[in-house]
Amino acid sequence: MNRADLDRFFSPASIAIIGASQDFTKITGKPLYYLRKHSYQGRIYPVNPRYTSIDGIPCYPSIKDVPDDIDLALIAVNFRMVPQVLMECVEKGVKFATIFSSGFAEAGDEGKQIQEEVARIAREGGIRVCGPNCQGAVDFHRNIAAAFSAALDVFPLLKGSVGFVTQSGAMGFSIFNLAQSHGIGFSYLVSTGNEMDLTCIDFMNFMLDDDNTSMVFAYLEGIRNGEAFKKVAEKARIVGKPLVVLKTGKSDVGSRAASSHTAALTGSDAVFSALCRQKGIIRIEDTEEFIDLAKLMTVFPPTIGGPRLGIISTSGGGGVLCADIADDFGVEVPEFETSTVEKIRQSIPSFGSPQNPVDMTAQVINTADDFRKVLTAVAEDPSVDAIVVVITMIVGTSGTRMALDLARARRETQKPIVVVWTAGEHLISEQLKILEEARVPCYSSPRRALKALAYLINYGLHRTETSNDPPVISPMENILPDLNRENLRGVLSEHQSKKILECFQISTTREECATSAEEAKSIANRIGYPVVVKIDSPDIPHKTEAGLVRLNIRNDAEVISAFNEMMTAVKSKYPDAQINGVLIQEMVTGGVEVIIGVKRDPQFGHAVMFGLGGIFVEIMKDVTIRIAPVDHREALKMIQEVQGYRLLEGARGSAKSDIQALAETIVRVSHLAESLPNLVELDINPLIVLPEGAGVKAVDALMIFDRP
Amino acid sequence: MNRADLDRFFSPASIAIIGASQDFTKITGKPLYYLRKHSYQGRIYPVNPRYTSIDGIPCYPSIKDVPDDIDLALIAVNFRMVPQVLMECVEKGVKFATIFSSGFAEAGDEGKQIQEEVARIAREGGIRVCGPNCQGAVDFHRNIAAAFSAALDVFPLLKGSVGFVTQSGAMGFSIFNLAQSHGIGFSYLVSTGNEMDLTCIDFMNFMLDDDNTSMVFAYLEGIRNGEAFKKVAEKARIVGKPLVVLKTGKSDVGSRAASSHTAALTGSDAVFSALCRQKGIIRIEDTEEFIDLAKLMTVFPPTIGGPRLGIISTSGGGGVLCADIADDFGVEVPEFETSTVEKIRQSIPSFGSPQNPVDMTAQVINTADDFRKVLTAVAEDPSVDAIVVVITMIVGTSGTRMALDLARARRETQKPIVVVWTAGEHLISEQLKILEEARVPCYSSPRRALKALAYLINYGLHRTETSNDPPVISPMENILPDLNRENLRGVLSEHQSKKILECFQISTTREECATSAEEAKSIANRIGYPVVVKIDSPDIPHKTEAGLVRLNIRNDAEVISAFNEMMTAVKSKYPDAQINGVLIQEMVTGGVEVIIGVKRDPQFGHAVMFGLGGIFVEIMKDVTIRIAPVDHREALKMIQEVQGYRLLEGARGSAKSDIQALAETIVRVSHLAESLPNLVELDINPLIVLPEGAGVKAVDALMIFDRP
Repeated sequence: MNRADLDRFFSPASIAIIGASQDFTKITGKPLYYLRKHSYQGRIYPVNPRYTSIDGIPCYPSIKDVPDDIDLALIAVNFRMVPQVLMECVEKGVKFATIFSSGFAEAGDEGKQIQEEVARIAREGGIRVCGPNCQGAVDFHRNIAAAFSAALDVFPLLKGSVGFVTQSGAMGFSIFNLAQSHGIGFSYLVSTGNEMDLTCIDFMNFMLDDDNTSMVFAYLEGIRNGEAFKKVAEKARIVGKPLVVLKTGKSDVGSRAASSHTAALTGSDAVFSALCRQKGIIRIEDTEEFIDLAKLMTVFPPTIGGPRLGIISTSGGGGVLCADIADDFGVEVPEFETSTVEKIRQSIPSFGSPQNPVDMTAQVINTADDFRKVLTAVAEDPSVDAIVVVITMIVGTSGTRMALDLARARRETQKPIVVVWTAGEHLISEQLKILEEARVPCYSSPRRALKALAYLINYGLHRTETSNDPPVISPMENILPDLNRENLRGVLSEHQSKKILECFQISTTREECATSAEEAKSIANRIGYPVVVKIDSPDIPHKTEAGLVRLNIRNDAEVISAFNEMMTAVKSKYPDAQINGVLIQEMVTGGVEVIIGVKRDPQFGHAVMFGLGGIFVEIMKDVTIRIAPVDHREALKMIQEVQGYRLLEGARGSAKSDIQALAETIVRVSHLAESLPNLVELDINPLIVLPEGAGVKAVDALMIFDRP
Repeated sequence: MNRADLDRFFSPASIAIIGASQDFTKITGKPLYYLRKHSYQGRIYPVNPRYTSIDGIPCYPSIKDVPDDIDLALIAVNFRMVPQVLMECVEKGVKFATIFSSGFAEAGDEGKQIQEEVARIAREGGIRVCGPNCQGAVDFHRNIAAAFSAALDVFPLLKGSVGFVTQSGAMGFSIFNLAQSHGIGFSYLVSTGNEMDLTCIDFMNFMLDDDNTSMVFAYLEGIRNGEAFKKVAEKARIVGKPLVVLKTGKSDVGSRAASSHTAALTGSDAVFSALCRQKGIIRIEDTEEFIDLAKLMTVFPPTIGGPRLGIISTSGGGGVLCADIADDFGVEVPEFETSTVEKIRQSIPSFGSPQNPVDMTAQVINTADDFRKVLTAVAEDPSVDAIVVVITMIVGTSGTRMALDLARARRETQKPIVVVWTAGEHLISEQLKILEEARVPCYSSPRRALKALAYLINYGLHRTETSNDPPVISPMENILPDLNRENLRGVLSEHQSKKILECFQISTTREECATSAEEAKSIANRIGYPVVVKIDSPDIPHKTEAGLVRLNIRNDAEVISAFNEMMTAVKSKYPDAQINGVLIQEMVTGGVEVIIGVKRDPQFGHAVMFGLGGIFVEIMKDVTIRIAPVDHREALKMIQEVQGYRLLEGARGSAKSDIQALAETIVRVSHLAESLPNLVELDINPLIVLPEGAGVKAVDALMIFDRP
């Protein structure tokens, strides 16, 4: 499906409305009504055997009777009739169909069966379908509203650069409507419903390629094809258009409800969040945040130089509140350069503050030029990347002057300027209009402004920090010489798992498997005392809990008796377990225990987890996740973002750990996962990170592969 | 200052405006303008030697010339003239003055001096003063606007039950204006400025006693008198009126700016947060949250039965999003009773969902009674405490019907009903009006609604969980028989600190201080090996880091050599340290290490800190704080709210710890702090919590008192 294809979907030269009604208050009547209301310039053909014409337009008994080629059929008939109708569309050579009808997979078994039949007809007939159970699509720049939502009662629709893909028609069109009432203009809007054929990802791809679209917003309930989503996220990153996602089904209750009401599968939310962080997808938390963010993103380039904010306020309290909230969101409020402070000092009263956040005091209303001068001084300060102006109860002429000063500053500086004006709209409507025309985003609350700005800043930082090169993957051919991949099935023992780690150059403990006490003794002597003695069995993954690990074995006598005791114990406790033998292993002391894990997510593939061992993971859940592959820079970010990082850095008097070797190990684990598609789970627990320069060592490992 | 006093401040029978201007656009002209605009019924006397009358009202050269008694003088003259003007007010017998003028303590040294002079005149003359550097006060129910903010240009002002005290005039009046534009009505509003005499706390006290006020909102920049604030917080708790606080100066930058621009001291923010949690003060994070919360609190009683939410949505997506956000805020979305699910199932289409969150689907527009039936079923479900209804793009007649159904349900159930209607206001203005008249709060975003609801729910839970009884303090008389309180000065040694702990029945290690090797040996034998040997000196608080702690000393020979080595080492390393001797101490093994600390906060007095030892405190900053005194129930809450709590409960295979004994120890530490006002700092680190029934033991302790 390439771009040109969907272009015709959004902008068809001819549209048939199958099941059209002459009652424009009904879902079946609305598409015709809205197409005409918003000045569709193409040809419209209502299809309904009950009418000969609707509101002056000829109506046909069947699509096959229409005397024209049809680009798009809008289908609004009972779901049981859809297979026949779609078959007729195929016969007619219709290119696209949007199926509004409900009752399909979302409703139950009968609907599911019919949906499968419809899908088969579409596939075999070569017609591409949006829906079923969707609300249609709008092409704003070409005035084509092929949809039935009451949100289209508004006229005119605001054109703009936001592309919007929604899996929920009801939520999507209502967010759209709310956004329009806040002045947000759109390029495209499409509701994808059950995604029987065309999916949200097809549309996101299309919009990312579209010149009229500068950001794509997706309201998602579930992602069917994680691999495709990863690709579209990567594409967004490369073309440099922000991808903003509001995804529901985050909580347990939410995801229970999500799976009960849509046919979509919901992947693990933590993995999805990791993917967003990794790809620079802006994951928002509320409908309103979309509006707040779109206000910024449609007027400023999506990259800000840095995270440093200059704050100017007409009230000391307002500036301080803004600084507090900036801090909550990790946005910096730096000190100004000395020369800036001096310039500001000349334009504010002695009881104001020329420091960042600047307190101009309400005296700003008395002197004509002061605000403009302060604004210029802050905008020119090289330590400032963006400016927030907090205006309190300044209205009337003084307010208008400030608005005009802001409009001028907006033209004169490249740095984003955002206004927080905490007064009732009716007192400042004139001023708000000046700001809107000058494209200066204005908010009624500091928190909303700062949160939007923080999203924008973090997006910019992500773009600066990541390159467009694909992650460098070391050559992996033939590194598994002694592994028969066909045999990687089910649970592997510790020793087997470690052999695979070694193939990927992940450092493990020196160890060998003994099948007799004599052999145990000679292995221990080769390795050197003290050693650790463990049972090696794929059937006993939790060896420590089973009492089948013995630490600090110091001589031949101890190793022999440990071997014998362990074999006796295991035979009585686990008579059916497959026993490979007893592992004789070097004992590693010192270092910091960490855990590296891999879990295959049903949607997004292999997720790599990292955390510090012990209470960090077990009690504090202090872990971080990425989707494989992970490169060295990303691995370092993972290490740095867990709270326990300070321990690796040498907090509490310990030596600094070998963080580079740890990062490299995370990279190798991610390559391992990429190379072994049938790997279900991997746990290296613990991996000991030794002091700087001494590397790491995997002390225990467990791998689980698909069962045959 | 009792209630009746401030009543006359807000509602004076006569007002003089000193420095009145006939230019109503100026600060000096506005008070007269607004008093008349809002129909002040008392007598007004402008005072200004330049006029004989202003706008038809006789104007007097001096307040002393006014032929009437004056309740309130509004002073708007240059700050240098204020002492003389106030002196004349005193001579005239004026009861209250509001000083609008700026240039006082907030501006610099000269202003500070003049403010002190003004304060002296007021104190000696018996006149009570609001300000200086404030914007005045409004009594809404009696239509008295004795203020100059442009926010008073709105007419009429909405009366209601919110009392509002603000330290920042500019922020306060602009938040007020914004709130009025969202339909929030007020009882009183006062801006307190520099708080030279009357403080925010005086006004909060007054409003808590006022029958027209159901909640008090305070916008605070700094609290001068922490003890008074604690009392007013306790009063709010007892009278059952929510106290909502937006306090700035939270971040480092914010608090740096706060102290530069106001004369207020800013206390430690973490301690303030702890106080809020403890007293049930609702600490909000943004101006808009006040409006969102006031919408709820002015229509529902401030206590909800519990935290369980029933969600009804016209879109599956909307319900799921709401459930996700509820989860973010710790609000429960329980399963309905079976009978409720059955009732709902009969009123929704098969592709909807009768479970919580209910998905009615957009079909709700087609059938007249369904929404009402579902609403009733959910409201009657005993597992639901409050209801959120999410309405998407339902407008026109169907929307109006839903609004009317909501209005009816509001009358029929005691449970709070909140609406989230995500459509542009212009499409649903009629419906919003119906909801407003029925007192059903409506929001345009799920997150804003849920956050406000979460505040309300948590407030209710706090009220349920705390009783109005003062914390029970065990009798403390004569429990310090061998302590000469006068001698508690500066840093105490470990052994001295523990003696004080014992006076408060806090269990410590068995230990004695030896001054000779022989004595060390005999003490060790009395205690029983193994023992711990430590230097005991008030001058070496960090003994471990100094190498002056030896663990696991197992016999006489070891104890003697440990004693001798330690004395030699300390004499060479710390020749000037005061050495009490060497502490011979029982060695405690097992148990979980925790830390209990006390720090005296300059504003709020002794704060008690609790956390688990080691990385929990040092790396994860996993601690919790309360203001002393702390009772047993509150201590248990402290223990339960740290993330490491699971370790005390027996996670990771350890035994369950003696949590009751730990809680009791926290209570005793808080009593200790209360009993010793000159205690600056206390650290019990570690306190070992032994398995259930075995109690706790303070292993190390450090106390610091005021120096003489």
